[in-house]
Amino acid sequence: MEQIRAIIEANRERFLAEFGELLGFPSEDGNAAGLTGAADWVSERLQRLGARVQRLSTGDGPPVIFGEVGAGPRSLLSYSHYDVQPADPLELWESPPYTPTVRDGKLYARGAVDDKGDTVARIHAVEVYRAAYGELPLRLKFFVEGEEEVGSPHLAPLAARYADLIRADGAIWEGGGFDDAERYTFYCGVKGIAYFELRAHGAAYDLHSGYAPMAPNPAWRLVHALATLKDAQDNITVDGLMAHVRPPTEAERAYIRRIPFDGAKMKANWGIPAFINDMSDEDALTRFLTAPTCTICGVRGGFIDEGEKTILPSSALVKLDFRLVPDLTPELVTRLLREHLDRRGFSDIEIKGFVGMVGARSDMMAPVVQTAIAAARTTYGHEPVVYPSHGGSGPMHTLVQGVGTPGGIITGVCYPGMRMHAPNENIRLDDYFRHIEFLVEFIKRFAV
Amino acid sequence: MEQIRAIIEANRERFLAEFGELLGFPSEDGNAAGLTGAADWVSERLQRLGARVQRLSTGDGPPVIFGEVGAGPRSLLSYSHYDVQPADPLELWESPPYTPTVRDGKLYARGAVDDKGDTVARIHAVEVYRAAYGELPLRLKFFVEGEEEVGSPHLAPLAARYADLIRADGAIWEGGGFDDAERYTFYCGVKGIAYFELRAHGAAYDLHSGYAPMAPNPAWRLVHALATLKDAQDNITVDGLMAHVRPPTEAERAYIRRIPFDGAKMKANWGIPAFINDMSDEDALTRFLTAPTCTICGVRGGFIDEGEKTILPSSALVKLDFRLVPDLTPELVTRLLREHLDRRGFSDIEIKGFVGMVGARSDMMAPVVQTAIAAARTTYGHEPVVYPSHGGSGPMHTLVQGVGTPGGIITGVCYPGMRMHAPNENIRLDDYFRHIEFLVEFIKRFAV
Repeated sequence: MEQIRAIIEANRERFLAEFGELLGFPSEDGNAAGLTGAADWVSERLQRLGARVQRLSTGDGPPVIFGEVGAGPRSLLSYSHYDVQPADPLELWESPPYTPTVRDGKLYARGAVDDKGDTVARIHAVEVYRAAYGELPLRLKFFVEGEEEVGSPHLAPLAARYADLIRADGAIWEGGGFDDAERYTFYCGVKGIAYFELRAHGAAYDLHSGYAPMAPNPAWRLVHALATLKDAQDNITVDGLMAHVRPPTEAERAYIRRIPFDGAKMKANWGIPAFINDMSDEDALTRFLTAPTCTICGVRGGFIDEGEKTILPSSALVKLDFRLVPDLTPELVTRLLREHLDRRGFSDIEIKGFVGMVGARSDMMAPVVQTAIAAARTTYGHEPVVYPSHGGSGPMHTLVQGVGTPGGIITGVCYPGMRMHAPNENIRLDDYFRHIEFLVEFIKRFAV
Repeated sequence: MEQIRAIIEANRERFLAEFGELLGFPSEDGNAAGLTGAADWVSERLQRLGARVQRLSTGDGPPVIFGEVGAGPRSLLSYSHYDVQPADPLELWESPPYTPTVRDGKLYARGAVDDKGDTVARIHAVEVYRAAYGELPLRLKFFVEGEEEVGSPHLAPLAARYADLIRADGAIWEGGGFDDAERYTFYCGVKGIAYFELRAHGAAYDLHSGYAPMAPNPAWRLVHALATLKDAQDNITVDGLMAHVRPPTEAERAYIRRIPFDGAKMKANWGIPAFINDMSDEDALTRFLTAPTCTICGVRGGFIDEGEKTILPSSALVKLDFRLVPDLTPELVTRLLREHLDRRGFSDIEIKGFVGMVGARSDMMAPVVQTAIAAARTTYGHEPVVYPSHGGSGPMHTLVQGVGTPGGIITGVCYPGMRMHAPNENIRLDDYFRHIEFLVEFIKRFAV
């Protein structure tokens, strides 16, 4: 530990300068020069690290920079991205978003935590490891994409094409970091998602509502169809869907019980008197992390402005998202939903499906999970908080379980004040350097 | 008949000139000079007719001009209005809206059919009656208001205050006229209406939809509440509501069967394959005219624009109108709706009620109805089409059944090409003069 810290300290200024170089590229969606600059920087930096680097083409999109370094029986995939969210609104930044600036121990720049910090810290960790222990004892596969902020549209075909290249014995993902009580936090999975628009049609145009006794009302039609998808106690009642939901394991439950969770604070923050069905904190948290959802994200039909207008709408629309847990897939949910509606005579209701994602959940006992926990204990000096899954969705499955990698873990350089996606995005410099320490410890333990 | 026609013919130019005078006032909502001009004209013209005229104050609104003329055991209320819809868009008028212009036997002007035609025709009918038969054999009560196009906001308090003045043995309302096969058409009632906004609330702001397993979703809440108000076969299931619905009488059913109704044409026009529940034309028409409704006029919650956004809405809103038939009142429906929701645990759903109207339906055997039918037969030479009720709503009940008048009938100078509320509103001059004939015949028969 002392040795590792000394190496980091000796390289501190150079590491910061290199981090700053990558942060200088405005690699926003649509900024070709910014994206190319960042991609080239990552590619050259990995080559300087001695990696065998390939540019995986995404057709018209920015390429994935793939680089492999080290040798050994075990392999590890590192997923990160070099693209960033737009910096707008620029006037709210205290220093220019692409001129990295240190204030009060924090480095301010767009992409500082999301996700150039992870990308560069992992490169620096390889250098520090080598300086301390010699050649990297595992094959570390850097997968650095340029389309994360626009939904990674080319990830699935790339994963299919390069499955052998990408496959590893474990994966580290972006995200994770310190919570509001300075506890280091991991996530062992993400939910999948399937997004649908359901549309019901009536007359060719809005009618005077006096015709309601004769003409079908698509808004009522949608209400009756929706009421069959979920009951008033918030249970999903789509035929057969819940049969595909893997219940939380004992290990997952055990880790969930150890997660500090202040339900009262959350309810006060949201301004709600109770969780759904007046659940206990533990039940709410377990459901949050392990249950699928079927959510009305939006509903629209007929006259929606202020005041009264007496019309019979010609169509009605609802936007539904399903957050998916193992073993639900978007394809399966699409089929179950269609069959469920057809079986009840709602064949007229049109379903438009958007691109979905399969969820990912690592076994809590998987080497990548247990190694991360042990490395965090050593580096951060406390028991980390381990979420079996994130409540949100991400494409982890595509690059991990989907290609046969047994597990992945979300780990990174976040903290509550980071302003991710917002003006004045920043990273705490201490977090950055401690994270290099953590990664070195993780590599050492995972290689064994 | 010959004599009546001769009198009308002799006065034709003067009648048209007088009609044109009233049409010259731009009596739109907000045009104080136009409204005052029209009100004064009606008041002075009724005085010249020998009526005892009163201005019934509506506070800050345009006054009701009330005038009574004639003597006899029976009394008749004439309801009409001197205000008009805005003439906008002006550029679509072929002649200026307040410069009455005759083209091809039609008089073009804003208010020609709605509703200055009715108002002046009834004044002229009194003159023609007198010229033919002597003094008017009944007490004709003109009630000419100036706020119809803005929803008659002062009608209810006026009716309460002046009930004795307004009460009569029957009433003639505005509207009615020729259908697309040149059959003269009456309506013996209108539906009432109650309009509500139902709102469900969740968190204080939209949440990331990942929180759906914990945080209540007001859109789902509304769906489940709505699904209890109406079943999938379009039956209203609000507790106790249908018990207050008077079924159609045998006489009403008999008149409905005589109404020419082309369901296939209507369905083709609307672009729907079938009426609700694949009803026959007769059932559809009967339901249209005699059943109450509960219509989703609009629904709105969460993300309603194009594309995907994964949020959990903080609130959801539905706009509902109930078209009311006897014996449903807005107050009753408001109470039943609240009780129904409360009984099912939906007390959190907020109901905002807008001003409602009670429906009106005259007995098919009421003197005013049967007299109108007989007078139409004589004047127009064919059996009129008689609707027990209009499918739309109006304030007839307030001035008729609500003050103890046994029945009212909708009769006027409409025809399919009239462009009511639109640019180039017009009346067929023949309709105008034939309607005077009809009114004379009606007065003669009703007085007996």
